Amino acid sequence: MKKTIINLLEEVELNEPIFIEALPGIGHVGKLVAEHLIHELGATKFAELYSPSFPPQVFVGENGIIEPMSNEFYFLKSAGEDEKDYIILIGNTQGLSPEGQYDICGAIIDFVDKYGVKDIYTLGGLGTGQHVEKTKVMGAATTKELASMLEEHDVKLRSADGGIIGASGLLLGLGMSRGMRGVCLMGETPGYFIDADASKAVLNTLISILKLDVDVAKLEERAEETRKMISKAQQMEQEMAERMHIAPGEEDLRYIG
Amino acid sequence: MKKTIINLLEEVELNEPIFIEALPGIGHVGKLVAEHLIHELGATKFAELYSPSFPPQVFVGENGIIEPMSNEFYFLKSAGEDEKDYIILIGNTQGLSPEGQYDICGAIIDFVDKYGVKDIYTLGGLGTGQHVEKTKVMGAATTKELASMLEEHDVKLRSADGGIIGASGLLLGLGMSRGMRGVCLMGETPGYFIDADASKAVLNTLISILKLDVDVAKLEERAEETRKMISKAQQMEQEMAERMHIAPGEEDLRYIG
Amino acid sequence: MKKTIINLLEEVELNEPIFIEALPGIGHVGKLVAEHLIHELGATKFAELYSPSFPPQVFVGENGIIEPMSNEFYFLKSAGEDEKDYIILIGNTQGLSPEGQYDICGAIIDFVDKYGVKDIYTLGGLGTGQHVEKTKVMGAATTKELASMLEEHDVKLRSADGGIIGASGLLLGLGMSRGMRGVCLMGETPGYFIDADASKAVLNTLISILKLDVDVAKLEERAEETRKMISKAQQMEQEMAERMHIAPGEEDLRYIG
Amino acid sequence: MKKTIINLLEEVELNEPIFIEALPGIGHVGKLVAEHLIHELGATKFAELYSPSFPPQVFVGENGIIEPMSNEFYFLKSAGEDEKDYIILIGNTQGLSPEGQYDICGAIIDFVDKYGVKDIYTLGGLGTGQHVEKTKVMGAATTKELASMLEEHDVKLRSADGGIIGASGLLLGLGMSRGMRGVCLMGETPGYFIDADASKAVLNTLISILKLDVDVAKLEERAEETRKMISKAQQMEQEMAERMHIAPGEEDLRYIG
Repeated sequence: MKKTIINLLEEVELNEPIFIEALPGIGHVGKLVAEHLIHELGATKFAELYSPSFPPQVFVGENGIIEPMSNEFYFLKSAGEDEKDYIILIGNTQGLSPEGQYDICGAIIDFVDKYGVKDIYTLGGLGTGQHVEKTKVMGAATTKELASMLEEHDVKLRSADGGIIGASGLLLGLGMSRGMRGVCLMGETPGYFIDADASKAVLNTLISILKLDVDVAKLEERAEETRKMISKAQQMEQEMAERMHIAPGEEDLRYIG
Repeated sequence: MKKTIINLLEEVELNEPIFIEALPGIGHVGKLVAEHLIHELGATKFAELYSPSFPPQVFVGENGIIEPMSNEFYFLKSAGEDEKDYIILIGNTQGLSPEGQYDICGAIIDFVDKYGVKDIYTLGGLGTGQHVEKTKVMGAATTKELASMLEEHDVKLRSADGGIIGASGLLLGLGMSRGMRGVCLMGETPGYFIDADASKAVLNTLISILKLDVDVAKLEERAEETRKMISKAQQMEQEMAERMHIAPGEEDLRYIG
Repeated sequence: MKKTIINLLEEVELNEPIFIEALPGIGHVGKLVAEHLIHELGATKFAELYSPSFPPQVFVGENGIIEPMSNEFYFLKSAGEDEKDYIILIGNTQGLSPEGQYDICGAIIDFVDKYGVKDIYTLGGLGTGQHVEKTKVMGAATTKELASMLEEHDVKLRSADGGIIGASGLLLGLGMSRGMRGVCLMGETPGYFIDADASKAVLNTLISILKLDVDVAKLEERAEETRKMISKAQQMEQEMAERMHIAPGEEDLRYIG
Repeated sequence: MKKTIINLLEEVELNEPIFIEALPGIGHVGKLVAEHLIHELGATKFAELYSPSFPPQVFVGENGIIEPMSNEFYFLKSAGEDEKDYIILIGNTQGLSPEGQYDICGAIIDFVDKYGVKDIYTLGGLGTGQHVEKTKVMGAATTKELASMLEEHDVKLRSADGGIIGASGLLLGLGMSRGMRGVCLMGETPGYFIDADASKAVLNTLISILKLDVDVAKLEERAEETRKMISKAQQMEQEMAERMHIAPGEEDLRYIG
């Protein structure tokens, strides 16, 4: 396998869809929001992405069933005829190498561009490394108008104080070169565990901006399920280290050795 | 050398062969099982795989004789005419980089697909990091039917408690996209040394599932031989670290060493 | 995105331009000099470079506005008709991987070669790791004539005492194969912070060599602005480390974070 | 620059040349031997190799003169008409990544194959990590005949006790697939400094095997010169770390960050 591929499962026509990205990231903040949207609003999977830049492994899910590493595209039709539809991207992994991230995110932008996407929302967590008293939603945008809009929805703008790493940042950067505009919403989180509070805060902001009709209460249950997945992922990392003979102090052997 | 290549040594026709993979991994558990099968059942090497994603090195074997890094395909004809034949994959290395693993495993799946493979068995060890009282064989499968079958053979299913890293996992994942089904059998092992007990447990499970006629007793002898290889491999790792690794006091070695 | 691309914003004709490179490096020494030249002399951006070998991220600038990672080419017409013009290269990043650096620097040399570049000046800092009493400008050159010229301008030649890493070195190396000649000017700096003193020293040397008419005084103001960028960049680095780095206690973050 | 290239400087016809490789390695053992042979026997440079898999940098040599990273091929005509000629490979670097090593070594084998090479001698050091009382020359070979020949020349065969990492190993491995045979000679060295004693031992062995007429005494002078190069290389590494923001405990950021 030498190329990133996207398998289309269903032909769909969408009305200038809004693209929401929530691949795994700090505290699983975005992933939890997107999974909640998909289940509560009844979105339909219509494409799968596989890439040689994903980690070389599979997941073992419930009851010993193997799942390949993949990203998945869901679509959601809006109620009103003139309203914009949605494409939601989730998955169990992101690209590993920098070049891999560019390859995969480029393929994603190519794909959603064909459906007429003009607006991108990327969701994630912002690790603070310490206890978070009351979760704030931080944000950034590709245009001044969108940045102002975020402020109107109580999102605190990050300003010259950092960057956005991985798919949540890169999709916005690559989208800009296609004339797409977008924002990144980041829920403050200590990181390192499934943070349902941060996810709720991001979800509330998204509901407010996009005028979605979603029950926020059930998100806590979903957080519990995802906590199991986290411990699963931690063990995988451990195992990979062992199999590739990576001793704690020699981790870069993974790449050069 | 820029591409993974497979050199065919002999044209063979095989009856819907079962594909058994046992490249080097934790405790050399799978490798030991596969080498035992090859020698006891008289399998024949019919193809060799070389890749630029293997470690950039050679092995020094007995009496100072150099061996290139490679993976090797063996075939085994079954006694009965209607019985399935076998393809067994062993080798002295796996791909180093994630992209390299995808490249190599993709080439392997392409290759065995041409022989009509529908079933994959990948063999490995599951590192526990501590003393193992009585070796259990853990497993995972690509379908519910296969998972149930494993349980009937006393294999304990892993469940949402980790993943399968490297060729043993990736071959199953890539095979799924070709409609192949498969299982991974993992012998519990402390890891970090040649574990004949774990190998025996996996071999007994495999014999039970595939109804093979193999003498298990001689496996201990083979373990002893392989122990020499392990210490060889460990030293290589050490040496590569010294020559190429960027440890604090060794940085000069990257360029001059 | 699989290839480095250069977007031409404006067609220009230049008179055997001198190419000045100042991508981000130690102490931001070169970057500060180049930004000062661009603003004081009124250089015009005429091309942008994007690459899949840049870090997979975006910057968040003032007021939450997102900027993609890029390198930028500016041109500057000289006053006299027979005088050489200038191409100045700045940016917010360099290539990450060694192969990426070769790819990007190769594309840069191809690009400036078309404008007839024969002379390259690469600007950077030379980290001393300790307090610098009075900033010296160190240098190296591709020919003996240029090395002598540097000495006439009080540049201290480095001699068999190190190398030049990254774009500042590689552009000179790749330029040599096209018959371009060049020098690298390095301002001594403790490193790890914005060093306006080192930048002033390099700027004065450049003014002396190229007979430029630039106000050096305002550079200190610009240094202050850039200090904000640095802290931004440091935080990004920190964040990337947190999100993608395999530190002992953070290994889970690679896949789920 | 995206491909490894070899620039031919001079057309030569060679009589089934013996290929001697001595790229930089542990203790500079091989490099010192090859440079000595080239100067003492008056070999002529006839080709240069450049690669995007070399480190992205240049060296600063004597008097501030910049040298690109490269490997160099020298040829040496033998006195007798029926005697085999020589191709000697030296350089200031090796490939960085595993894939880069395969790419470069593959290009080298392709190149020397065209001149009819059947025999390869790769020279290096074997790091012991401790004081070496009396330097032994260790060896390995691609055939039993060559291994016996080495023993006749007092070379101690390594046996199932490690591998040969980098160009010294990989060239032999890739050569085997072209029907070339070869040996690796390794002088025991503590490593980490220029080891003229190890080089002398390897040179004496090579003289004995190939019946060369070379003055061994001057090798000590050459060692002194090379010691300067070593300190140069150490500083480069330091600088690269600083420029790429690699703190001592975060070294793998270099690849993923």
